[in-house]
Amino acid sequence: MSFPPPVPAPARDLGDVRLPLRPELADEVPYGAPQLDVPVLLNVNENPYAPSEEVVATIAREVAAAARGLHRYPDRDFSALRADLAAYLARESGVALRPEQVWAANGSNEVMLHLLQAFGGPGRTAVSFAPTYSMYPEYARDTHTRWVTGRRASDFTVDVEQAVATIERERPAVVLLASPNNPTGTALPLATVEAVLDAAARVEVPDAPEVAGRRAGAVVVVDEAYAEFRRPGTPSALELLADHPNLAVTRTMSKAFAAAGLRLGYLAASSALVDALRVVRLPYHLSAVTQAAARGALAHHDELLAQVQQLRGERDDLVEWLRAQQHRGAGLQVADSDANFVLFGTFADRHAVWQGLLDRGVLIRETGPDGWLRVSVGTPAETAAFRDALTDVLSEQED
Amino acid sequence: MSFPPPVPAPARDLGDVRLPLRPELADEVPYGAPQLDVPVLLNVNENPYAPSEEVVATIAREVAAAARGLHRYPDRDFSALRADLAAYLARESGVALRPEQVWAANGSNEVMLHLLQAFGGPGRTAVSFAPTYSMYPEYARDTHTRWVTGRRASDFTVDVEQAVATIERERPAVVLLASPNNPTGTALPLATVEAVLDAAARVEVPDAPEVAGRRAGAVVVVDEAYAEFRRPGTPSALELLADHPNLAVTRTMSKAFAAAGLRLGYLAASSALVDALRVVRLPYHLSAVTQAAARGALAHHDELLAQVQQLRGERDDLVEWLRAQQHRGAGLQVADSDANFVLFGTFADRHAVWQGLLDRGVLIRETGPDGWLRVSVGTPAETAAFRDALTDVLSEQED
Repeated sequence: MSFPPPVPAPARDLGDVRLPLRPELADEVPYGAPQLDVPVLLNVNENPYAPSEEVVATIAREVAAAARGLHRYPDRDFSALRADLAAYLARESGVALRPEQVWAANGSNEVMLHLLQAFGGPGRTAVSFAPTYSMYPEYARDTHTRWVTGRRASDFTVDVEQAVATIERERPAVVLLASPNNPTGTALPLATVEAVLDAAARVEVPDAPEVAGRRAGAVVVVDEAYAEFRRPGTPSALELLADHPNLAVTRTMSKAFAAAGLRLGYLAASSALVDALRVVRLPYHLSAVTQAAARGALAHHDELLAQVQQLRGERDDLVEWLRAQQHRGAGLQVADSDANFVLFGTFADRHAVWQGLLDRGVLIRETGPDGWLRVSVGTPAETAAFRDALTDVLSEQED
Repeated sequence: MSFPPPVPAPARDLGDVRLPLRPELADEVPYGAPQLDVPVLLNVNENPYAPSEEVVATIAREVAAAARGLHRYPDRDFSALRADLAAYLARESGVALRPEQVWAANGSNEVMLHLLQAFGGPGRTAVSFAPTYSMYPEYARDTHTRWVTGRRASDFTVDVEQAVATIERERPAVVLLASPNNPTGTALPLATVEAVLDAAARVEVPDAPEVAGRRAGAVVVVDEAYAEFRRPGTPSALELLADHPNLAVTRTMSKAFAAAGLRLGYLAASSALVDALRVVRLPYHLSAVTQAAARGALAHHDELLAQVQQLRGERDDLVEWLRAQQHRGAGLQVADSDANFVLFGTFADRHAVWQGLLDRGVLIRETGPDGWLRVSVGTPAETAAFRDALTDVLSEQED
């Protein structure tokens, strides 16, 4: 914009400002991975491929069409987008869905917030199994939901018996299962998800509505943000929807659709569950521009899924390569990955390895259990840069 | 999208679904004005003018540029947009602001949610003065904030003594003042806002952090969604920012920028207050597409504000015309308006008047105190249709 220079901003020092910030937020810092200016960014599981000019042109065209009616509020129920998302999920997973079984919001973040606003909240509990996605406790904090984490097994799967026992003990209103899990890459067998769904349906949430003398059980959220990257033969929890009205399967366009900048998260569930989310959503939460841009990207699903296919091959090669590396006389440990990232370790001083890579221009993520590191799958050139840098760092550490 | 036809959706009846919906939501319905297919829509205070082709082209160009990097997460701090918004506010109000004094989110809705997440919540109280915007209690409900409303005076202004007494009694963490108020159109004198700010700063919020032996007082939010439509000489609360670190002034691009479909709400406050909002926002809440489209629209502020100027004239004419109308032997009452809508009445059966207008193809809003109706300012043709329809309805009622 070109404006005349405004009068200078007040110089007043506001260091002594007294504001009634909630006590539990007093020592909190804004969530987010460090964003450093580094040549190779493999730290936040972005898709390394920018949208093609065809995708860009479609998005621009759709947004221009939407902009012509921008003075009006958007479709509160984003019906056309929900139909497109339902059709896409049917195509991707073979599971037929009605548009009213689909919900969307500004990122999976907001989808999760809606879920916890409707079903969590003060006096209620949400359960997950760690190590898992580090944002989950923030959603719980933001909605005043009590947060309980069970542990995953040493291979990062969820032990059914332990999970069921945790659910029976805690009587949560919401159970969160990431599959494929972040930061481990672990996809859960459907049998595990089903056992959790059954346990969740059996418990009675203390202040839930009663139907026929029994209180409602828990909602199970399977976070499938990375689902499109799962290996052949790995099922999606979408297949369980028809039999489990207490199941919500969340997805995102950030990863497979190479659209992290779009902030479009969505879920599939029973229409009854979706109806509950409609009560807590802020009206018009999805802009006409977001709806249009998302539909534009969805129209190119074939091209984008072909790229996902390529990234899966790249990921499998990376897992194999990492497993062949030696570190202090032993092979590296590498978690099976159904996602677009790989968790590997273990290092006595993981920070030193992370820093060594950063010094060589490669930013990965220092996250997950002690001693492990997470690297996103990049372009072949980026992955090569990571391999070279890691080889270098590890050989230096042998000295 | 063109997909092969999916297998049929499951026919399973989910009528008996038991879900742990929060008890306080059990009887709630999703918020939103009825959206009817009617020729003249004057019900939700939209700007009647679609963006020009120049504005559309700029938005499309900016979004296309953003889409080329859509595989990356957006700038979490939306720095460029904040700078543009600060520059715009400086231009519009003459008040210089630093970009870090500006916050934005997906609609004023989400801005308010952030405010109540940071400063409201369980065990805390928010206060406003009715009649006022009907979404406020929903924000409170969604954040588990206790909601208390004082009353506005019969001319819809806020009585300072009563407001101060309410604040001293309730010790709220947040005070919400709409100015210009929706649905009455009433702008508050700065003296009123200052008195409320002082009272808010004086109270001690029960569980707020202590500084130098005193607990922090309340945050005052002045909702200026309609500020650009205020009459000449009516000040903006932005002028009070330099002296009141507990003040937040919210704005939106929905009205003056003819961009209700964009969902871009924002606020100006002390940087300390904005910092608190950064803790509760979900990371990457503003998409790259939204940031780009908003900047595109802001670049055309001169054109858009010229249209606002025109709408203000149209509004003043409508107020004058309404005041000249007779209903059952008396002139209509019409609230002074500093917004892009007019509240008028009073009618023994306002629903009959509303329905009569609707039958004639004009949709307005049945809202506000008993007996009053609210009409948005449309294009000259739309306003003429409203005038004709109202004349018709009122003369019918005389019979």
